[in-house]
Amino acid sequence: MSRPYTFDPLPDPVVGPGEFVFAAVGLDHGHIFGMADGLTGAGATAKWVYDADPARAAQFAERYPGVRIASSEQEILDDPEVRLVASAAIASERAPIGLRAIEAGKDAFVDKAPLTTFAQLEAVREATARTGRKYAVYYGERVHSEAAILAGQLIERGAIGRVLQVVCFGPHRIGGGRPDWFYDPAQYGGILCDIGSHNFEQMLHYTGASGGRITASTVANYAHAETPGLQDFGDAHVVLDNGATGYVRVDWFTPDGLEVFGDGRTLILGTDGYIEIRKYVDIGTDNGGGQVLLVNQEGQHRFDANGMTGFPFFGQLIRDCLDRTETAMTQDHALKAAEMSLQAQDGALVLAP
Amino acid sequence: MSRPYTFDPLPDPVVGPGEFVFAAVGLDHGHIFGMADGLTGAGATAKWVYDADPARAAQFAERYPGVRIASSEQEILDDPEVRLVASAAIASERAPIGLRAIEAGKDAFVDKAPLTTFAQLEAVREATARTGRKYAVYYGERVHSEAAILAGQLIERGAIGRVLQVVCFGPHRIGGGRPDWFYDPAQYGGILCDIGSHNFEQMLHYTGASGGRITASTVANYAHAETPGLQDFGDAHVVLDNGATGYVRVDWFTPDGLEVFGDGRTLILGTDGYIEIRKYVDIGTDNGGGQVLLVNQEGQHRFDANGMTGFPFFGQLIRDCLDRTETAMTQDHALKAAEMSLQAQDGALVLAP
Repeated sequence: MSRPYTFDPLPDPVVGPGEFVFAAVGLDHGHIFGMADGLTGAGATAKWVYDADPARAAQFAERYPGVRIASSEQEILDDPEVRLVASAAIASERAPIGLRAIEAGKDAFVDKAPLTTFAQLEAVREATARTGRKYAVYYGERVHSEAAILAGQLIERGAIGRVLQVVCFGPHRIGGGRPDWFYDPAQYGGILCDIGSHNFEQMLHYTGASGGRITASTVANYAHAETPGLQDFGDAHVVLDNGATGYVRVDWFTPDGLEVFGDGRTLILGTDGYIEIRKYVDIGTDNGGGQVLLVNQEGQHRFDANGMTGFPFFGQLIRDCLDRTETAMTQDHALKAAEMSLQAQDGALVLAP
Repeated sequence: MSRPYTFDPLPDPVVGPGEFVFAAVGLDHGHIFGMADGLTGAGATAKWVYDADPARAAQFAERYPGVRIASSEQEILDDPEVRLVASAAIASERAPIGLRAIEAGKDAFVDKAPLTTFAQLEAVREATARTGRKYAVYYGERVHSEAAILAGQLIERGAIGRVLQVVCFGPHRIGGGRPDWFYDPAQYGGILCDIGSHNFEQMLHYTGASGGRITASTVANYAHAETPGLQDFGDAHVVLDNGATGYVRVDWFTPDGLEVFGDGRTLILGTDGYIEIRKYVDIGTDNGGGQVLLVNQEGQHRFDANGMTGFPFFGQLIRDCLDRTETAMTQDHALKAAEMSLQAQDGALVLAP
């Protein structure tokens, strides 16, 4: 068995009611609820919501008592009390919304993928550099996953030595009832840009690299001819700038026999051990999700991360906005992961179906 | 739960004593015992052994009663009763031994990696085409693994639909006491040529492809500066000729806390489900090795493959030699896997340590 590790304490709220006010603009993806849950859990106050679909805005207002439904995005941008604008709009609309928030003097917090084109990337880099405002990104598969956070704490404590490689599997279930934009690559950005962005972020985070080069990538629509714009498969191989490597496969092939949306895994190889994160399910067992398996020089250990870490990202982000620090995630890191996603997508070999 | 599958019957010996005679030449790798166990288990008769090291030859002769220690390789090649020459010599010597066997009118059966240079590949292709003799390869991680064989039977039965991707992890423990040739790339061929060859073979086999293109590969010596010729890490991304993809990582980083030499895995993604093979260990459990996990449209199932399949490859190989068929493995397939190994090795980016 491994030595007993002492993990970081569970995070407390970092502000009191009304001390950090945010608004939600663009609720196309349900991730907006994860983003708002995280922020309010860390003490932030949701004041406004705006969405072109009034029913969606009403749903949000119902979940967070006290939230007012704005008549326009501008009404929110005009409110000086709003510090942060959160958005899970259609992926291709996130950068325009975030840039408008930044130009209005606010910080932005967008769902991943945070942007879908190189032009948006340049515009975001320019605006954040010029204004000092933040374009923060909700890479939820790491910052909102206790298993992913626990793995990071193990690495920080030297449990596997130097990290040499991060391999990610991000299978998802496409199911029915998805809105049209899920099938339009111009809107969702392509599978490597969209769900792949989670994984480029994890490669950078766990290896400690500041960037990397896509050495190979592919996309395909193997089995969904009825929705030609869907890329049901994508993968990428990466060489990071510190000599580590990364590999990611994302797909929409979760079979019906799985009880969760996908068997998301992250495998982290170090010089002195390895970690496997079984994020949402541990197939063939009743363990549930949130499992972190550690094998190192001292032995094997399984951690059930549920309840062990909380989600420190959100309180750190709030403090970063108030204190103008970069504790939660640096701007460079958030945008480098997005850039690698775009590069992988842009250079992908399109496989024959 | 999945439907009950009916698997292939356990293989019986295909010949009686003396009906198929083989010899062993070159015992540098312990795999020779796996090869000889497989052949004798299928009914073959071991008649001769030759190795430059008499102690090693004696060890082999002790294990297989009736085996005679030859005074030279030539003594074996001169015996018309010998149908097949098996070799697990130093990797770079396997092709020369096999080619001499072929020129003597025998079939060859060599450990993987079957060859270490493109010149050897060409010579083997030329000789097998010209003579009709076989240059069979012991890709033991598939043909001598019941879990790997069971996975193949599940795929044949349509359990996961069309195979889209094969991902392999081949970690190994370097430990101490390895002979010098393990640290000389000119002799072992490089990590992707050597242990990686298992995985290129699996990609071809499970996807049913007849070839593929290496789109990216890397090798490194990250943490073994004392043995500069060791490549302790390698990986490769492959696009197969039927539109499927493959990825392999091999390494020498198995930590001391693991009870087996390596946590070998194969992950096979299909249009209708996926299979995970946990070959030698199922970390965090007492399941042991040989675990095959299946998740498909119907549910989840775990198979303990131990005792379920036997090793049909060896009997098929014997019959192939007697009947001049290609049931066990085609010559093209065996050499294509070797060619991909060489290509991955030859084109590998050498990562900074």
